[in-house]
This record gives sequence, C-alpha cells and structure tokens, in this order.
Amino acid sequence: MQDSTANVERFDWLDEIRWTDDGLVPAIAQDANNGDILMMAWMNRASLKLTVAEGQAVYWSRSRGKLWRKGESSGHQQVLKDIRLDCDADVILLKVEQKGGIACHTGRRSCFYRTLQDGQWVSAEPVLKDPNAIYGSN
Amino acid sequence: MQDSTANVERFDWLDEIRWTDDGLVPAIAQDANNGDILMMAWMNRASLKLTVAEGQAVYWSRSRGKLWRKGESSGHQQVLKDIRLDCDADVILLKVEQKGGIACHTGRRSCFYRTLQDGQWVSAEPVLKDPNAIYGSN
Repeated sequence: MQDSTANVERFDWLDEIRWTDDGLVPAIAQDANNGDILMMAWMNRASLKLTVAEGQAVYWSRSRGKLWRKGESSGHQQVLKDIRLDCDADVILLKVEQKGGIACHTGRRSCFYRTLQDGQWVSAEPVLKDPNAIYGSN
Repeated sequence: MQDSTANVERFDWLDEIRWTDDGLVPAIAQDANNGDILMMAWMNRASLKLTVAEGQAVYWSRSRGKLWRKGESSGHQQVLKDIRLDCDADVILLKVEQKGGIACHTGRRSCFYRTLQDGQWVSAEPVLKDPNAIYGSN
C-alpha cells in the first residue's frame, strides 16, 4: 500500500536489499541505449544511496576500501537511467548512459572483453583509448 | 603464446578466474538476442566446467549446496552462445538463448523486474506464466 506521506525522505527501499555479511551488494551496469553489459562492481548502503541521490553510479571499492565515484579519474561517469532489483533482492542492475563510451580501465567499452575460444580467454573487443591517455601517465 | 598441443584437454582457463574464498564466481546471464539481463547466479569450478562442456548454464545453488542445471524443473534452460570474463577475472557473463522466454522463478522474463519509483521497488514486468504451471503445484 502506498503511503500518502511519501514525500518524507524514506530509505525503506535500502532495507529491502539482502546485503552480504560484509554489507555489500553486486551492481551490474548496463548501457541503457544498446543493452551492452559494461561492468559489475560492488556497492554498500552509502554508495547505493549516493547513486540514487546524485543520479550517477557510485560504487564501493573493495580494494581501496572507499567510495568510488565512477569516472572520478577518467571522466567516464555513468549517468543513471533506471535502477532494478532482482527477485532475491541481492543483485542491483543499473541502466546507465556511459560517458565517453568507455567503462573499462583498459580503455575498452566493456569490462567483459575476453571470450573463451578453444580453451583460452582471448580479447574480443578493441582498446578505444590508451589507458595512459585516460588516466594520465605521470 | 599458443600451445601447439592444445588438443589435449586443458583447463588453464579455469585457473585464470579469481574465485572467491568460497570457490565461487558470479555469473550474469544475458539474452543473446535482445541484450536483456536475465539473472545473476553463482558458479563453482565444477559448474562452470559443466556449463562449457554441456553448452548450457549450470550454476551452483548456494542455498541448496548443489549443482543447479538451470531449467531442470522448469524446462527453461539457457543455451550457451558466448561466455565472457571481465578485466578483473572475477565475473562471468553468459550470453544465452533463454528457453521458454522465462528466466525468473516468478514467471517473469527477467529476475530484474523491480524498479525504484518514488522510493519504492515496484514491479515493472508482467508475469508471463503462473509459477504453479511452471513448477507444478503438487
């Protein structure tokens, strides 16, 4: 049932998510225009809340242990178009506009650029921009 | 460098994956025809090997603690068209043909059927088939 006082800031929707023991949820980013899967990363409660509040993807970097505003170094932000939750409430799907057309730190469009061929992972997508040019080499 | 004796059965490609401490890797299933993201589940080494060997998705059910041949009850198998690995080697992407056009146990096409609207998760995709008719109610 809809609450008619829903204008009050409410975050019940965050409580519906089944977070891991570490307080995380996997988030898949999909290109809203052509359906390409760009990447998967992790979010904690704070980063998911910021993603919705700011309208662009904010992940939780497990390796760096801090919030990771996608594109903060590269300029390749992901503008939020739609956000989905799966039936088990333990995976998030973001439909995004990928700025610069590059999601991967290798300079490729998608992080899923390796395909299995004759028992080997081989690159199936071109590097669109030299990572040194994206992040600076100094 | 390519090994010219590659005809020998080799599973080096499985060793390249960065499994979790529990020996798992998340696997995203995407409709190979229209790009829809259907679901995300987990695989262990045995299930991923079987997925490639059998040409259809075999997951590891964490709740049941056993191999889960997708479609074994519903008939909604996922026929493998392409398999991808991401840049960090810790997420798998399966491009599949979804038998029956239904991936979700709720009878919907995709498990990602809830969208965030005014601070609430609401269903945005129709039930195509009654789950009782899919799984039997007896």
